[in-house]
Amino acid sequence: MEIEEVVAAEQVVTPWEVSAPDGVIDYDKLVDRFGCQLIDAAIVDRIAHLTLCPPHRFLRRGIFFAHRDLNRILDLYEAGEKFYLYTGRGPSSESLHLGHLIPFMFTKYLQDAFKVPLVIQLTDDEKFLWKNLTIAECKRLARENAKDIIACGFDVERTFIFTDLNYVGGAFYENMLEVAKRVTYNNLRGILGITPEDHIGKVSFPPVQAAPSFPSSFPHLFPGNDQLRCLIPCAIDQDPYFRMTRDVAPKIGFQKPSLIESRFFPALQGESTKMSASDPNSAIYVTDSSKQIKAKVNKYAFSGGQASVELHRKLGANLDVDVPIKYLNFFLEDDDELDHIKKEYKEGRMLTGEVKQRLIAVLSELVARHQRARAQVTEEMVDAFMAVRPLPNMFG
Amino acid sequence: MEIEEVVAAEQVVTPWEVSAPDGVIDYDKLVDRFGCQLIDAAIVDRIAHLTLCPPHRFLRRGIFFAHRDLNRILDLYEAGEKFYLYTGRGPSSESLHLGHLIPFMFTKYLQDAFKVPLVIQLTDDEKFLWKNLTIAECKRLARENAKDIIACGFDVERTFIFTDLNYVGGAFYENMLEVAKRVTYNNLRGILGITPEDHIGKVSFPPVQAAPSFPSSFPHLFPGNDQLRCLIPCAIDQDPYFRMTRDVAPKIGFQKPSLIESRFFPALQGESTKMSASDPNSAIYVTDSSKQIKAKVNKYAFSGGQASVELHRKLGANLDVDVPIKYLNFFLEDDDELDHIKKEYKEGRMLTGEVKQRLIAVLSELVARHQRARAQVTEEMVDAFMAVRPLPNMFG
Repeated sequence: MEIEEVVAAEQVVTPWEVSAPDGVIDYDKLVDRFGCQLIDAAIVDRIAHLTLCPPHRFLRRGIFFAHRDLNRILDLYEAGEKFYLYTGRGPSSESLHLGHLIPFMFTKYLQDAFKVPLVIQLTDDEKFLWKNLTIAECKRLARENAKDIIACGFDVERTFIFTDLNYVGGAFYENMLEVAKRVTYNNLRGILGITPEDHIGKVSFPPVQAAPSFPSSFPHLFPGNDQLRCLIPCAIDQDPYFRMTRDVAPKIGFQKPSLIESRFFPALQGESTKMSASDPNSAIYVTDSSKQIKAKVNKYAFSGGQASVELHRKLGANLDVDVPIKYLNFFLEDDDELDHIKKEYKEGRMLTGEVKQRLIAVLSELVARHQRARAQVTEEMVDAFMAVRPLPNMFG
Repeated sequence: MEIEEVVAAEQVVTPWEVSAPDGVIDYDKLVDRFGCQLIDAAIVDRIAHLTLCPPHRFLRRGIFFAHRDLNRILDLYEAGEKFYLYTGRGPSSESLHLGHLIPFMFTKYLQDAFKVPLVIQLTDDEKFLWKNLTIAECKRLARENAKDIIACGFDVERTFIFTDLNYVGGAFYENMLEVAKRVTYNNLRGILGITPEDHIGKVSFPPVQAAPSFPSSFPHLFPGNDQLRCLIPCAIDQDPYFRMTRDVAPKIGFQKPSLIESRFFPALQGESTKMSASDPNSAIYVTDSSKQIKAKVNKYAFSGGQASVELHRKLGANLDVDVPIKYLNFFLEDDDELDHIKKEYKEGRMLTGEVKQRLIAVLSELVARHQRARAQVTEEMVDAFMAVRPLPNMFG
């Protein structure tokens, strides 16, 4: 295995736990420990140049900030070779919050910019194994979540959405076995922190998340194209799964998947942890009304402003801890306006209330647009995205 | 978990290892340690009475000698309830030896006597995980082995044969997950002797062998019949898998499967271990010619006779170690003739050569009959047994 585990006494980042002793993730340290690379301005420029599309704000602003072998994918793309995208979600709750949308918004941009096929894995099996949910409930949640994903605007001509409970089997199961045969329990313990008291579902699941990295897991999409490269957009907490996958790939005759990895979207209360689905006031949900968004932002969004207007006018806001600014950084498209707000707020000319007001407008519009799109998603559309079918124009 | 593990300093019986320090399995001790029950004459009589069929010689002679909850199955059968049979094989070699046929011969008897459906699992995934074989080779072997199994005479109207590589998925995968969620790594370590250096395929496989014990794994056969009981004929080395399965069953709302378990069929060289596929002279294969059978029995079958004819006439044979007698015990149908041979041989009136001659005749006939039946098995018949289909007359 390529990597050492993150020492628990310092920050811990696994697919199930994100914490840091001082409450702030040190991303540079994380990249260093994980052994991935930072995305620099040259890579962002190169993507813009190759795709003839302006780079997504998540790239411009370092939200997708780390990668593995992204340059290799770009080299091949420049030489005329295609690749496919793989992302996913564990469907553990009914309504997604804004943080859940980030990988899908970014993946849609990548799909549009590169014009490549995309597979989206809904790990309903994982959620059954890790959460106190029935299989039937996990299946229902997967289908509901698929509607929110489809509402992000994916192209049905280039996108295959599947749930593990429906799709595991056949060629996909074969690749699960190929992976499982080449990872020991001790490897997994090191990478994912699994213990002997854990149930064995936690041991058998990682190959399920690895399998979509290999094109032969999708014989209806990529027949005879076993060396097709895969690019995985994900949050950096998923890196351990794919370090394992990259270690195994050459041993079973496949290319290592490339990764493009994001920071975590902060909770309203601050960025010390990921948002919690169990605390509805920690996040803005895609089902929230404008009124709820306004109330949550005003009441819970942690402010870096000063205690009094006088002090604020004098000292200005601390942007490093200010949640409204962080959220605008994710969702306000206009770079000039964002810079202006940051400058005015930092120098005390703009108050927290004004920044929050702008954020409320941005989020309300975003959420309303999502809700309109989601309302258009029919059961037939879900079936269409999930149909096991060839995608004849997926590279077109 | 119900049971303790077998201490390695004494005899070891797991699905992958059978050994005893003194070279002889102590079956009474094994039954005691595993916590199963011996099959007594009353149970054999009861089966004969309930089925209106003479009990199979494997039952009459204590070859299938142990059980779990067999009386419960018989109670329900007597009250008019049906059950289904589940057996299987790991397809790791091209040609089966006689030992491999034993569970299938016995299962065919059970199917005919009780008139119940049967599912046969070919664990090609297991063999890929444990052996140095490709997935393609495991799939090929599974199909070849299926032909030998079909040649045992199963009723296609009551029998579903499946390979894991083809069938894992859907409802079957759901039951795998239900099991995996309720077994810890430490449980498996205790039951099966898996170590942290083993690859995780060995950890993820046990739920695959457990799943066929539950009727909902076969929605095309037993829809809405989730409480249907399952009876598993197998060699006793498979008991650890099913102890695990029985422990989990009530936790996920299913009946515990019942078991009927056989002794091991001895190698030609003696019964200290199971036969080894890597030593072709340790076993009679179903592909052997009459000439090969004659040569192997004469040359390798361990004799309990005395060193010289004079001594033999005086002392007689030691039947406890004599392999020809053990083999006749498995395959000579006529109880009177078997008793006669044993008496004459034990008292020195019959010589090893004469016993071997009778054995050669019995085995040659058995193998020739199998070869004729196997030659009749077409690819279409394999497809028919493996088709995922309802069996409308399976209890008829």
